[in-house]
Order: sequence, then C-alpha cells, then structure tokens
Amino acid sequence: MGVPSTALFTDHYELTMLQAALKGGTAQRRSVFEVFTRRLPEGRRYGVVAGTGRVLDAVENLRFDADVLGFLRERRIVDEETLQWLAGYRFSGDVWGYPEGEVYFPGSPIMRVEGSFAECVLLETVILSILNHDSAIAAAASRMASAAGDRPLIEMGARRTHELAAVAAARAAYVGGFTSTSDLAAGFRYDIPTVGTSAHAFTLLHDRERDAFRAQVDSMGRGTTLLVDTYDVAEAVRTAVEVAGPELGAVRIDSGDLLLVAHRVRQQLDELGAHHTKIIVTSDLDEYAIASLAAAPVDAYGVGTQLVTGSGHPTCSMVYKLVARAESADPEAPLVPVAKKSSGGKTSVGGRKWAARRLDGDGIAEAEVVGTGTVPGELADRQLLVELVKGGELLDTAREPLDTVRDRHAAARAGLPLSATQLSRGEPVLPTEYVHEHPGSH
Amino acid sequence: MGVPSTALFTDHYELTMLQAALKGGTAQRRSVFEVFTRRLPEGRRYGVVAGTGRVLDAVENLRFDADVLGFLRERRIVDEETLQWLAGYRFSGDVWGYPEGEVYFPGSPIMRVEGSFAECVLLETVILSILNHDSAIAAAASRMASAAGDRPLIEMGARRTHELAAVAAARAAYVGGFTSTSDLAAGFRYDIPTVGTSAHAFTLLHDRERDAFRAQVDSMGRGTTLLVDTYDVAEAVRTAVEVAGPELGAVRIDSGDLLLVAHRVRQQLDELGAHHTKIIVTSDLDEYAIASLAAAPVDAYGVGTQLVTGSGHPTCSMVYKLVARAESADPEAPLVPVAKKSSGGKTSVGGRKWAARRLDGDGIAEAEVVGTGTVPGELADRQLLVELVKGGELLDTAREPLDTVRDRHAAARAGLPLSATQLSRGEPVLPTEYVHEHPGSH
Repeated sequence: MGVPSTALFTDHYELTMLQAALKGGTAQRRSVFEVFTRRLPEGRRYGVVAGTGRVLDAVENLRFDADVLGFLRERRIVDEETLQWLAGYRFSGDVWGYPEGEVYFPGSPIMRVEGSFAECVLLETVILSILNHDSAIAAAASRMASAAGDRPLIEMGARRTHELAAVAAARAAYVGGFTSTSDLAAGFRYDIPTVGTSAHAFTLLHDRERDAFRAQVDSMGRGTTLLVDTYDVAEAVRTAVEVAGPELGAVRIDSGDLLLVAHRVRQQLDELGAHHTKIIVTSDLDEYAIASLAAAPVDAYGVGTQLVTGSGHPTCSMVYKLVARAESADPEAPLVPVAKKSSGGKTSVGGRKWAARRLDGDGIAEAEVVGTGTVPGELADRQLLVELVKGGELLDTAREPLDTVRDRHAAARAGLPLSATQLSRGEPVLPTEYVHEHPGSH
Repeated sequence: MGVPSTALFTDHYELTMLQAALKGGTAQRRSVFEVFTRRLPEGRRYGVVAGTGRVLDAVENLRFDADVLGFLRERRIVDEETLQWLAGYRFSGDVWGYPEGEVYFPGSPIMRVEGSFAECVLLETVILSILNHDSAIAAAASRMASAAGDRPLIEMGARRTHELAAVAAARAAYVGGFTSTSDLAAGFRYDIPTVGTSAHAFTLLHDRERDAFRAQVDSMGRGTTLLVDTYDVAEAVRTAVEVAGPELGAVRIDSGDLLLVAHRVRQQLDELGAHHTKIIVTSDLDEYAIASLAAAPVDAYGVGTQLVTGSGHPTCSMVYKLVARAESADPEAPLVPVAKKSSGGKTSVGGRKWAARRLDGDGIAEAEVVGTGTVPGELADRQLLVELVKGGELLDTAREPLDTVRDRHAAARAGLPLSATQLSRGEPVLPTEYVHEHPGSH
C-alpha cells in the first residue's frame, strides 16, 4: 500500500519533539500518557471502545526501516542522532486499556501508555487515528444494533468511505453488533462473514428482469436474494416467485417508502405462498429509520453511509495527553502529575488514573469512577483497565477473537441503565465521578 | 496492510453478479458505467473531483493473486469457473473522467468506465470508495482555502480519521488548496510538504516552560514555532521571545478565543520587537472560523477534525451506474441506454454521456451541460471528460503531478461565478442542463 510500516502514521511534530528531548536530556524521563475524551458526541448516551486490537498491531509494527529513515533524512525532518535512535526503536513500555468492546464516558482513561517520553510520544497519532475512527463507527453500530433488536444488520458502506477505512469500519460494526459485511477485504482480514447478491446493474444488463432473475437463480440457487425495485416492485415480486418458486430466499428493496413497501411485499409474498421468503431493506438507513421499521415485516437491514460516517459523528474527540512524568531521567525518579492549565476548556486532570464502574443494588451500572492513587476497596473488583503490553511484550490475553469483543460489548451495553439505548439525544447515561488521591495515601 | 492487492476492496455482490453473468452468457456484453452524484451535500455550491490518481493506481493493482483466490474458494464466495476467470483478470477497457481537481455538479459524469460487464462491474466499490472519500475532503479543503485567502493552511487531522484515510485526506486537502500536512506518511507517499514542531506534552515534560522552549530552540533553531498556551499565554510569549530572541519563527495558539488572543499576542510580539514572528492558530477550525479570523493578525491556520471529516459532509453520494450495454455479447452489437425506473428518487439518466461547461460572454462558467449523442459544435472545445485508460493501458497523460492537479482546481474554482465561494448555504452555483440526443443524430 506504499507505506511500509506503521512508523509514518505519525505527525511530524512527534519526531521534532523527540529530537529536542534527546538533545535536551529529557527523552528518557518516564512518562504516562492517557487516551480519553472530554465529551461524548452531542446527545450520545455512551461511547464504545473499538480498535484496541488494531492499536496493538500498529504498535508491534512500528519500526523505522531503511526506506522510512531515508525519507526522514532526505527531507531533513530530524537530525542524525535522532535517526540513529529511531533505527533501533522498539516500544519497550507498558500499555493498559479498557478492553475492546467496553463502553466509555467522558473522562474514562480508555488507554494508558507508559514508558520513556521518547518511546511513548511517537505513538500519539497512530493510536488516536485508530481509536477515534473505530470507536466512532462502533458507537453508531451499537445504536443501530439496539434499534434492530434480533434482526440481523449487514454492513455495506465500503463505497462511502476510504477503501481501508472501510475494512476497519466493517470490523468496528461487527464489534458494535452487526452480523455481516459486504466488504470482501474485511472477510479476508478479520474473518467477518460476507454477504451479497446483486445490484440494479445486473437486472439492467439483461433484456428482461425475468432473464436476470433466472440467471441469478440458476447460478446461486433458489435461496438467493433477488433485488426487486429496478422497475415495478409488485411485478418484480411476482416474477421472482415465478422464477425461484416459493423457496426464494429473500427479496431486497433499495428505494421508496420502506415501511409501506415492506408491508405490501410481505402481503404479496404470502399470497404467492412464499411465506418463508425474507425481506431485506437497504436504502439510506440509520438507527432512527431502523427503529421506525420495528413493526414492519422486515427480516434484515443493510446499512451503508450512516454506518461508515458514524451516523453524524464520524470521529471521536479522544486525545492522548501526558498526565505524569518523572522528575528526572533516573528510572527510579518519582512521577509528577502534569496537566495543561490554560483557558479555553482544554484543561485535563493530571496523574496516572484508575477507573471502575460502580453498580447499584440491582447490578446496573450507576457511575464511571475515575481516580488517582489507591482504588477504594469496594471498587477493586470493578476496575476497567486491563494490561495489554508489558515491557514491550504483548500479553497472551491481549489479542482477542473478534467474537469475544462483540460479546463483551453486548454485555457492557446490557449492564447500563435502560435509558442508554434511547435513541433520542440526552446526557451520558452514567456520570463520571472523580476521586482525588488523599495526601499520603501512598 | 494485510490486504495484498486492491482486488478485495470489492463488495461481495460484485463477484456473485460476475458468476451469474458468466453462467448466463451476459458477462461479455459491452457495458458503460458512469460515476455521478444526484445532489451535492446540502447547501454546497460545487463539488471537487479528487482521488482520480488513486483510482488509476487501484485499477492497475486489481489482480486476484493466489491468497485472494484461496480465500474466495475457501469461503465458497464464487464457483470454480469464476475463480478461473478472476485468476486471469486484468482490466482491458477504457476509462474517461473529469480531470482531477476539476469541479462538478449534480449529474456531472465524473468518471466513465467501458468494457465488458464482467470487467467493469468489479470496479464499482473501489472506485466509489476513493472518489467519495477524497472528493468529500477536497470539497471541504477548497472552501477552507477560499476562506483563508493567501494565508497557508496546514492539514493536521490524521489523529481524527483512519490512519490510511488520513494519508488520502492529506492528498485531497493539498488538491483543494492546503499548503502542507502534519502526516509523515503523506509526505512519504505523495511528496506533500510536512510540518510540525511540538505539543503540550513537550512543555509538560519539562520542569519549566522556559526549559522546554530552550530545548526546542537549541534543537530546531530560532526559526521554530513555540506553542504558547500550555499555561499563561502572555507569560509564554514573553518567555518565548526571551529564549529565542526576536528572530523567533512563530508562536502557535491552540485554545481560547483565537480572535482576541491573536490580537493580544500580535501586540505583545510587536512590543517585544518580534515584528516578524508569525502567529499560527490551530484550535477546532473550520471554514467559518477561518473566515471569522480574516481580519485577525493570523499568519497560518492548522486544521484537523473538520478537514478530515469533510466539514459536516464526510462522504459524497457518488454512485456507479450501468447507463448503457450491448444487446448481445457480440463486440459489434449496438449499445442500448438503460436506467433504473422505480420510485423513490433513485432514477438515473440512461445513455453514455458527454459533459461540457458553457461560459458566458465574460468567460465565466454559466452551466454544466450534460448530454448523450453528438456534442453541439459550440461546446466542442469545452468538454470536460478526458481519456485516462485505453484498452486497459494507462495513458501517459493520465498520471499527473499533484501540483498540476492543485493548480487545476484553483483555476476551475476561479472560473466559477463569484457566489461559488460564499460559505453560506445555497444552491449549486451552476445549473445542470441535459441535452437529449436527437433521434437519428448518429
């Protein structure tokens, strides 16, 4: 793809900071960076952590090879000392994070990266790119999955986003509760089930709609899905059942008033004896349209544009901030909490944080508790951060099957108050409570 | 990364259509597909074609290698006959398109792909992914560039979008008029100038802001850009000039009321004798915020989130539709115009189209004229489609330097009526006129 490793998914300033820190003697100060967001997208009740698995791949593959070093040298982006340092780069620090699929709230420390300033500062952009993109898609997918209930959701938005963003979007959609994808690269890369049958072009290629249906059934079998809205829907449904018989797998409707058309098509299919033929709808759906079709005789939804664009929120506002660093380059030097303090609403809370989700008496989440220092005893077994990378080595438990992540998300969402799945705009469904470290508590 | 060619940036249904057409004997019918959009994003005055160069790369690299074929076989996505056909796949048709950087309007035939149905149907998703993503970013960039006037625009949105979408976004931003990018991969891949100096983390790493500034100036020279809003802006500006002297290159402000702060900082810099020190602002800018700073003493803008998310419109609604196909598989068979005809506003205009931009007496564009059949004589030298691929071979003129594309966009925008660059919502600045072929005109 033209970019040989993940090393250059990096902002120029990370390398200039590295150079200045190497020269100034601060590069080896132990540092703690945290990923968090100051707010959810407007009106959203919860966020969904997605992309963690891809972050781990990216950190593992972040190496400065000869091509990359040659580019940095030729462009004079950094000096020779820095190039030497980069040539030997391998992340040797620790990464903790919310497990993928978990929900999050404003202030949740979604990921924590700890090591020397030099090795951690390089990871900012690639970590944020992945988490901001994938979490935005997963959040939209999760809302759609809530709205769809037990009906399957097909991800089909590849054509509406960058060709590789599409692959990550299919992955994030699956985490959020989608069932399958149209994107073959997502099937290849992540083993997500792929589906697809035909487009209007296939019908138009033939002299008659009947010829197209027959060609498709001859090739794919009676269980296939026929697209019935190229010309007249009622005529197409009649022809479809004539050609495939009542064993026809499904019909797909891609335009018109889906509520009305789905009812008519269901009635027509039943009259034709095709009681088991399913109805799939696929036209500009979002979570609201899906919810509005809850009472319609629809068996599956295909979602494209609104999924891959995060249903109005194509990115999250996650940031990667230095929250603590050592007083000196001595590995034993104590950590000092740090935070930006200027005006403009961009202040952050300093210090290395823990997070726990407090439950009420019925076992339903009631608060996201974030603190520094000692974790209160009653929250000790409700902690959210898990260890992913230790001393540069990926833990065995860190790389998870996507189905595990998908199940975790479903469970996490089910553990939230019921208002979490209201589609209407509102506040985050859990408040974030900050617990400040007591002086001398460690 | 992990996807060995562009072959799988393809929706499952393209392969099932291929299989059914191969079996049914229609796969070799000569076909014409066109890319167009039925509407611009709401309120936008013009669209910007971007991604053409990437489409050409993708078509050239669309090969089904052993890994891909093995995946398709194992998953039983297509049958053995289709796998055989795919193994020898190489696009042998023709591609015409609006040259990259050109503007477009509803109905503009932005790209035309012609060949057998089989070879053209496979290209739908990858072509749309690229054009829909890149054109959305370029359109936002173009509006921002209009708003910024002569002041440089720095693209810095990598952290807000998928890591490879970010590279394409930096490219599209450059086409739309941006000057540079923070994304090193975009510098590597597309030779776009990269820039960057430091983040708040660098200041926080040091015991005092002064130490951070000194380390940066020692390493990068006095011409560097110091970030002055970690603690108190006025104090930071004073410290910055003390450390770097009046030769300080620039200061960057990343929070607060930028209009107010820029005026104060300019006054303070002037009082300190740093008359040539520039002011760069970078906080959540979009085209409206840029325009509102026109009278402020700002020297450059850094734009992130709103650029890579298309400033409210992260995708275009381009579609890839079969508009004509042969009556039979005979290579000499005449083409028949085809179009979807059902309800729901998704109808299209059939037939292979030409397009031309008609000018008024002052040489300003006054209409986008789209037609089938013979081009009227007065529009013959105003045609928009150019040949890119002929018989499967990329034309020498098709692959263009990005600066050529960027200049073309600036010229195309300058040729539109003045209202094109109004930021307020409105109708497309040119009407699209359809010229229907006269019966017997060819």
